[in-house]
Amino acid sequence: MKTILILGAGMSASSLIRYLLAHSEAENWHVKIVDQNIDLVKKKIDGHPNAEALSFNALDSKERKPAIAHADLVISMLPAIYHVEVAKDCIEVRTDLITPSYISTEMRALNQEAIEAGIVIMNEIGVDPGIDHMSAMKVIDHIKAIGGTLTSFRSFCGGLLAPESDNNPWHYKFTWNPRNVIVAGQGPAALYMDNNEYKYIPYSQLFKKLDRFEIPPYGKFDGYANRNSLIYASTYGIEGIPTIYRGTLRRPNYCQGWDVFIQLGMTDDSYAMTNSETLTPRSFLNAFLPYELHTPVEDKFKKVLGEENAYLFDQFESMGIFDDSYTYGIENASPAKLLQQLLEPKWKLEPGDKDMLVMYHEFEYQINHEQKKITSSLVSLGVDEVYTAMSNTVGLPVAIAAKLILAGEIQEKGVTLPVNKKVYEPILKELESFGIIFEEKEQTIK
Amino acid sequence: MKTILILGAGMSASSLIRYLLAHSEAENWHVKIVDQNIDLVKKKIDGHPNAEALSFNALDSKERKPAIAHADLVISMLPAIYHVEVAKDCIEVRTDLITPSYISTEMRALNQEAIEAGIVIMNEIGVDPGIDHMSAMKVIDHIKAIGGTLTSFRSFCGGLLAPESDNNPWHYKFTWNPRNVIVAGQGPAALYMDNNEYKYIPYSQLFKKLDRFEIPPYGKFDGYANRNSLIYASTYGIEGIPTIYRGTLRRPNYCQGWDVFIQLGMTDDSYAMTNSETLTPRSFLNAFLPYELHTPVEDKFKKVLGEENAYLFDQFESMGIFDDSYTYGIENASPAKLLQQLLEPKWKLEPGDKDMLVMYHEFEYQINHEQKKITSSLVSLGVDEVYTAMSNTVGLPVAIAAKLILAGEIQEKGVTLPVNKKVYEPILKELESFGIIFEEKEQTIK
Repeated sequence: MKTILILGAGMSASSLIRYLLAHSEAENWHVKIVDQNIDLVKKKIDGHPNAEALSFNALDSKERKPAIAHADLVISMLPAIYHVEVAKDCIEVRTDLITPSYISTEMRALNQEAIEAGIVIMNEIGVDPGIDHMSAMKVIDHIKAIGGTLTSFRSFCGGLLAPESDNNPWHYKFTWNPRNVIVAGQGPAALYMDNNEYKYIPYSQLFKKLDRFEIPPYGKFDGYANRNSLIYASTYGIEGIPTIYRGTLRRPNYCQGWDVFIQLGMTDDSYAMTNSETLTPRSFLNAFLPYELHTPVEDKFKKVLGEENAYLFDQFESMGIFDDSYTYGIENASPAKLLQQLLEPKWKLEPGDKDMLVMYHEFEYQINHEQKKITSSLVSLGVDEVYTAMSNTVGLPVAIAAKLILAGEIQEKGVTLPVNKKVYEPILKELESFGIIFEEKEQTIK
Repeated sequence: MKTILILGAGMSASSLIRYLLAHSEAENWHVKIVDQNIDLVKKKIDGHPNAEALSFNALDSKERKPAIAHADLVISMLPAIYHVEVAKDCIEVRTDLITPSYISTEMRALNQEAIEAGIVIMNEIGVDPGIDHMSAMKVIDHIKAIGGTLTSFRSFCGGLLAPESDNNPWHYKFTWNPRNVIVAGQGPAALYMDNNEYKYIPYSQLFKKLDRFEIPPYGKFDGYANRNSLIYASTYGIEGIPTIYRGTLRRPNYCQGWDVFIQLGMTDDSYAMTNSETLTPRSFLNAFLPYELHTPVEDKFKKVLGEENAYLFDQFESMGIFDDSYTYGIENASPAKLLQQLLEPKWKLEPGDKDMLVMYHEFEYQINHEQKKITSSLVSLGVDEVYTAMSNTVGLPVAIAAKLILAGEIQEKGVTLPVNKKVYEPILKELESFGIIFEEKEQTIK
């Protein structure tokens, strides 16, 4: 019998736990799950005989290390900043580790130690990062195998709403950390490569420069540039590719509306507003509009929108931005904090709400003097507000990787991510049985 | 004989040194001037019998303190961050201190110690801060004295070019730290009060929301909001005033052009550009423009300007932004750094160039059921590229304050700034003899 230790049983662990327990009988697994909130764990394991709920402090190495030493595999679903400390414990007691998070510089530095300990530390194996790597590498390896030369890679991903739950004019609810949605795109300009030219898009332009496309039958999507796209060239072994771009997906009208908040300065998280506790949504908005005696806030806001964006007015009204009936009551709050406070109740997944994970890759390559294009797209729908598409697409690849590592089918050692065919091929194949299926299309473009 | 010790003999110390030496005979002063660059000091004192050039390290307390102990008054023209350390030495050896810089929180905290030591530490007594305080307080105290109620205070200041040296289409050259000009307005949103409503302007809107006015015969000026205007309400004892706004002045077309750089992201100082050493001005600009095969950078840039701002094209061309003949050669440079590199030679004061300091206050007040407006404006022209308006308006109030303190005419103790009548009245009066004269006008507005 093999022991799997899961650290953290939060939102994105639901599908992971369900998969592991469903396979625990056949695979002969004992699954231990640690969370500060033991009731949450008990609810998720629902009395399963192969599961054990633990409530020690997983952030404390002293409490955590004995459990890691007794496990055959650790899965860390803790906040990303804790993964390196967990990895150090795993190296010390020679236990394999999986995390769905981005490899940090500190994690990468543990590679040699992990190899010497004979363990694998598999990172970035959820969704964006995770399924994006695997599905992209499948096509990239195919193009290389047939002798093609990749000239362009553009890739988009978004956590959105299933059409049946898409009932607000922003076409958006929070399926991910709300704060990250509010401050998305802040910091250094987004960087990508377009026909061998480095291109930078600053925050104030980010939600204006959109790629628009359609995925039938799901309709239209807008993509905005996502941070530094260039790092993926080395991750995917496609250094020197003339065009590489990664973007985040939203439904039409979201970016156009969000840009209004950006331009007004209402997403800024760098300073506290004066007397923020006394602000209402309406006075919060009015603080970014010019003073005009006798002109209602709505009319001043319409002037900001202008004729061109007048159609957006209703979507701002629907979010309660003109509400003057309550004060935020939060002292020393930044504009971003107040905007989040306004949106959290409005953009919350309600019971029964289904989310939707959308991924869209576009590859252009040359072969035999022809230019060809492959598109690879995924639309994955959530089941409900617990077994969300986000939970499935994060948790299932982690779970399948766990199975493959314990069965000795993944032999790789060291600090790694799922870009090797031996890793991504069986995982993508099994994901198909859960409806996580990429549709690939190819065409000759000139 | 009294000894004055000047720490730092940089650009803004020229007029200060000239004044002190000119009065040294009559006032019986010995003036010691310390600078790392002793040749600079020797040039400025030009063999004057009451002057002494020293070259110890004024940033080192051990070297500095004996000189402070032997002085009757210290004037610190060092970079602002060193003033607090100098102030601590002055408290220890009980020597009065003058600095033209903003009072820092740390400096303010020394107030009680300075009072106990029986010394004055006079700050913010150059220009913006300095002459702005004094000229504003003169009008504010007048309005209070006649029983008026101040309802609005708006104040603008700018270091610009004298009309005869205004020979580039930006109507601007650097008369101040170039880096501060490049990153001006970055950070938290500008904050002011308009008719009792707090108003915030984020950086991306700052150079669009302009106040425009005329000062005959000097022509038109644009003002943009300068940081947090609210702090001046307590400094000037006008808490609760419904409207308070402070702005920075530029000539028309400057802000409109600068906003193009902001919108493109070319003033960002928060990240290093990839391969920045290989960029030319042209490729630097092109990194912020979309990729378009066969479209020259000039044409792409014209699209960014649009019809509305097409008139700005020449002013960008004049600054060499389309130049492709040299590379910057600076590794890991931010966009702001590259923009500064481009502009420093183009916007440099040439021999004979004269600058111009412009200040404009606007006060509205109620008295006897009438609403009245007072404007107070100053235009001060530089003599040449050494005795600049900036050097005069920074250095002369400092020098006059030194004379008043040594003569016992300023009796105030502690950490202070020139907002008291006994301080500002004699200084403003003597500044008039140097042509630094405010023109005040009053009108009834309803």
